[in-house]
Amino acid sequence: MERVRTVGLLGGGVIGAGWAARCALNGRDVVVCDPDPEAERKIGEVLENARRALSRLTLAPLRPAGRIRIVREIEAAAEGADFIQESLPEQEALKTALLARADRAARPEIVIASSTSGLLPSRLQAAMAHPERFVVGHPFNPVYLMPLVEICGGARTSEATTDRAAAFYRSLGMHPLRLRKEIDGFIADRLMEALWRESLWLVHDDVATAAEIDDAIRFGPGLRWAFMGTFLIYRIAGGEAGMRHFMAQFGPALKWPWTKLMEVPELDDALLGKIVEQSDAQAGSASIRGLERLRDDCLVAILQGLRAQDFAGGSVLKAYEEALYAEASGGRPAAPDLAQPLRLHETRVEPGWIDYNGHMTESRYLQVVGYATDALFRLVGVDAAYQAAGLGYYTVETHLVHRREVAVGEAIHVTTQVLGADEKRIHLFHSLWRTEDGTLLATAEQMQLHVDAKASRACPARADIQAALARLVAAQHHLPRPREAGRKIALAPLAG
Amino acid sequence: MERVRTVGLLGGGVIGAGWAARCALNGRDVVVCDPDPEAERKIGEVLENARRALSRLTLAPLRPAGRIRIVREIEAAAEGADFIQESLPEQEALKTALLARADRAARPEIVIASSTSGLLPSRLQAAMAHPERFVVGHPFNPVYLMPLVEICGGARTSEATTDRAAAFYRSLGMHPLRLRKEIDGFIADRLMEALWRESLWLVHDDVATAAEIDDAIRFGPGLRWAFMGTFLIYRIAGGEAGMRHFMAQFGPALKWPWTKLMEVPELDDALLGKIVEQSDAQAGSASIRGLERLRDDCLVAILQGLRAQDFAGGSVLKAYEEALYAEASGGRPAAPDLAQPLRLHETRVEPGWIDYNGHMTESRYLQVVGYATDALFRLVGVDAAYQAAGLGYYTVETHLVHRREVAVGEAIHVTTQVLGADEKRIHLFHSLWRTEDGTLLATAEQMQLHVDAKASRACPARADIQAALARLVAAQHHLPRPREAGRKIALAPLAG
Repeated sequence: MERVRTVGLLGGGVIGAGWAARCALNGRDVVVCDPDPEAERKIGEVLENARRALSRLTLAPLRPAGRIRIVREIEAAAEGADFIQESLPEQEALKTALLARADRAARPEIVIASSTSGLLPSRLQAAMAHPERFVVGHPFNPVYLMPLVEICGGARTSEATTDRAAAFYRSLGMHPLRLRKEIDGFIADRLMEALWRESLWLVHDDVATAAEIDDAIRFGPGLRWAFMGTFLIYRIAGGEAGMRHFMAQFGPALKWPWTKLMEVPELDDALLGKIVEQSDAQAGSASIRGLERLRDDCLVAILQGLRAQDFAGGSVLKAYEEALYAEASGGRPAAPDLAQPLRLHETRVEPGWIDYNGHMTESRYLQVVGYATDALFRLVGVDAAYQAAGLGYYTVETHLVHRREVAVGEAIHVTTQVLGADEKRIHLFHSLWRTEDGTLLATAEQMQLHVDAKASRACPARADIQAALARLVAAQHHLPRPREAGRKIALAPLAG
Repeated sequence: MERVRTVGLLGGGVIGAGWAARCALNGRDVVVCDPDPEAERKIGEVLENARRALSRLTLAPLRPAGRIRIVREIEAAAEGADFIQESLPEQEALKTALLARADRAARPEIVIASSTSGLLPSRLQAAMAHPERFVVGHPFNPVYLMPLVEICGGARTSEATTDRAAAFYRSLGMHPLRLRKEIDGFIADRLMEALWRESLWLVHDDVATAAEIDDAIRFGPGLRWAFMGTFLIYRIAGGEAGMRHFMAQFGPALKWPWTKLMEVPELDDALLGKIVEQSDAQAGSASIRGLERLRDDCLVAILQGLRAQDFAGGSVLKAYEEALYAEASGGRPAAPDLAQPLRLHETRVEPGWIDYNGHMTESRYLQVVGYATDALFRLVGVDAAYQAAGLGYYTVETHLVHRREVAVGEAIHVTTQVLGADEKRIHLFHSLWRTEDGTLLATAEQMQLHVDAKASRACPARADIQAALARLVAAQHHLPRPREAGRKIALAPLAG
């Protein structure tokens, strides 16, 4: 594939700045044309958001970031560019004129794309000397995270141009969707616009407020739309009887006043046959049962992800869990049995914790036992006030031994044995288990050192913490010493 | 709150079975009326899906499951029930008649709710002797996972009935949304219906196929709808200038042919003012910047969740990461000096990597040395094709020693010494350095074992990989052995 090194951006608003961030963080140099004296600050803020999001999104080694330069003239952005993306206000005359200027300044072989949400490419390319290299590449906000980019050529766009645009967007980690026909609003904005028009009626008629309409989406159909569109969702709703059955059952609703938008197509045999055939092709060999489980797994992943944000459906899940824990707390022992390894932390392997093999990645083992260590500290009296005074334990040494892999979604827990302690140190031994069947997954031996962070040196822990630790060591003294304790790494001959 | 112990369900189809699963798995006994001889099998399959989903969804202690009993007569389901939920086919006459029968059989003080997607409660309650206890409680498929339930009373529904229905649904972990007005299709189905009608036009006019329309949603706006509705999304798109600015910019599109559904409300001052006011109330004190970050964090969580399913937007992310890893292995300087510790990874401490003390958290040390290990694998010939065949090295043991803290933003790098290797194992020693001043931050000794993942057992590495490792060991043999190598953890007396 040809290499796009420098991207020329026309316009540095919300969308243009999003392109600048996506391109720069994918190793492209960017030249943005924007006359706004505040452009640098605004683009910098979007770039900062994008950096933050990308560093959370992936552990993969990101490309070395490109530079972003801001210029005032269209020509300055167009001249040295290997690809041009226009993101000016949605005014056809303005776009057409400035695209023609960019076309004159740019090398004739490069692609010029427009971010327009719905203006027709045949009209936008009208004043260009090289209209064949023009195409619409319509992204979604925030551009640096959303995968979709709709690609739509005009009457004079060449096939090679749409191919090259798709390849470039794919190299940025996006999902190009090519339109078969040129149409106002393309596909996604037509669907959004239909939903938006009905939303405006609901507000207009005082049926619901903006917040209530948003809630009707995000606690309901919106959760599914994050991974399956309406056709596949309805196919599943139709169950074993299939799409024709679903359409027969819900077809009549097309004539009902279930929206104020009443211009509907006639659901004749031709349309029905087309929908059934396309739905079959989409589902391929997947059974309804298989689709249901895929749907459920995606919903679970999304709800768990949102729970970590305590937002939308995630807040509902969080409140539900709190209720369940509160109901169950009557049955829980008040204090753990100190004479046994302490079960102080349990969790489930999160979707963000797995590597490309689908297993929990090494560093997460350390994170999970770290939670158990924190819980132990709280148990012996290291609380927030103590830490706020600059006192606390730091891990100086860890020895991890891996026994078994664990997959996403599996429940795991840690048990902790205190092998020893003195006035400044704690010698811990954690075991990580698969909860369902009690399989030992890994062990982690640790030495913790008590530190006065303000003085930057080790120091004895507070007397009551030392005493609590001493009680723990005495209570657990009878437990067998784990065989991995005191282990060192060596390339001894293998047993088998 | 009153305790609903037994739920009577009228209809055991996709929705009825979903209610049966949700209620039973929340500790309620369920009596389902369904004449289908296959009802038991079908409900059992939905219950199995629900159990699987719920066990993945939460670690909270689930309520002891209730029993599900199937009966043939409406009266048998209604008589002993503390709450009745009707989920019969969407035929008004059928529902009205059977609801009246249930009303006669049920104790007069209990709530009777209907799952109808859009029929009017005033009409459904028409034939009931106690219409005040009737309300619509409209759920979404799959009922056992989706939070939303729309609550809509008819002309004769009492306030107490909607209160009691909302409390019951909330106890099942759902989010009740109360409608202000009775309207066909309620809120969510009106929005879905608008989108569906436009979708049918797109298929009818051969603009796009079912699969392409679904893709336009799930790779695009659908990802956002999982946590924010259109009003809040548009508010953010409007940026610092706010909702009135957004409406001024995009209001004209209401008159454009961006959907075939052209009956639109007049965007006059009254409607505009209402929208702005409601949008302000919805956003509360949140800044645009804060909303952007919340949106980004939710998108990241969702994309990571879907990546674990390798589906929809998650597949796009996965492919992008694979490209980044492949590039990282290709673009390196031809050959590092094998006779020195290998400098194979450098990075910067990311904002997401620090703990409450502002230092890089322990598990991130392991993540950073893991990148160096991956780079070493690529250097000796472990590439994507090799891994795709199920072959590769797994860490079986790690010994971390911490020397110094490192703060956010600091540049760090790893050097790697290969202490030994045999046909199945590699003995590595990583040192992590602060790049600016060459301070040693930590060391990590590791043993890697070569595994055939398909056969689930250790096996010799490919001959050329063994040979490359042998060359490395020989080249580095002259290097001094690090003093932390072969170390074991022990509570020996402290020096100072």
